Amino acid sequence: MLKVNEYFGGSVKSISIENEEGVATIGVMETGEYEFGTSSVEVMTITAGTLEVMLPGENQWTSYPKGGVFEVEKNVKFKVRAKAPVAYHCLYK
Amino acid sequence: MLKVNEYFGGSVKSISIENEEGVATIGVMETGEYEFGTSSVEVMTITAGTLEVMLPGENQWTSYPKGGVFEVEKNVKFKVRAKAPVAYHCLYK
Repeated sequence: MLKVNEYFGGSVKSISIENEEGVATIGVMETGEYEFGTSSVEVMTITAGTLEVMLPGENQWTSYPKGGVFEVEKNVKFKVRAKAPVAYHCLYK
Repeated sequence: MLKVNEYFGGSVKSISIENEEGVATIGVMETGEYEFGTSSVEVMTITAGTLEVMLPGENQWTSYPKGGVFEVEKNVKFKVRAKAPVAYHCLYK
């Protein structure tokens, strides 16, 4: 059965997927600012909308439009900001 | 609140998203064969895995790997087949 995950009171929801590419989630974030923590390396691909991201050690937002990809290290926290709903694909490495 | 949709007894689940690109859903299909109906034109993009598709009037499967895009007309039924879990983005036009 497909697993649906909810974060931040339901403002972020995702569905888990596992195939030959690996273990991943695809999800949607409502407009808002969120801080996520990683427990593995995560490769994030934006599939709809634009996500602003502040990775550990950064003090500026970097904007990732649809098709944009960024990688987040293991065991860190990172901030994201969505000015409109965003869809993403998150591959765990 | 983000809406989660379930089809085929939970073998296909999706999350609705609406932003400047339009109204869409992102979803995951478990391994299986499914027939969907459209009520508007749908632009489907495969975001993980490979989906085989048989559009109306076709009698062969066409394979769409990750990144593949196909369009389905309004008010038709079409068949898809996933040999492993597939993630998609479906934009309604």
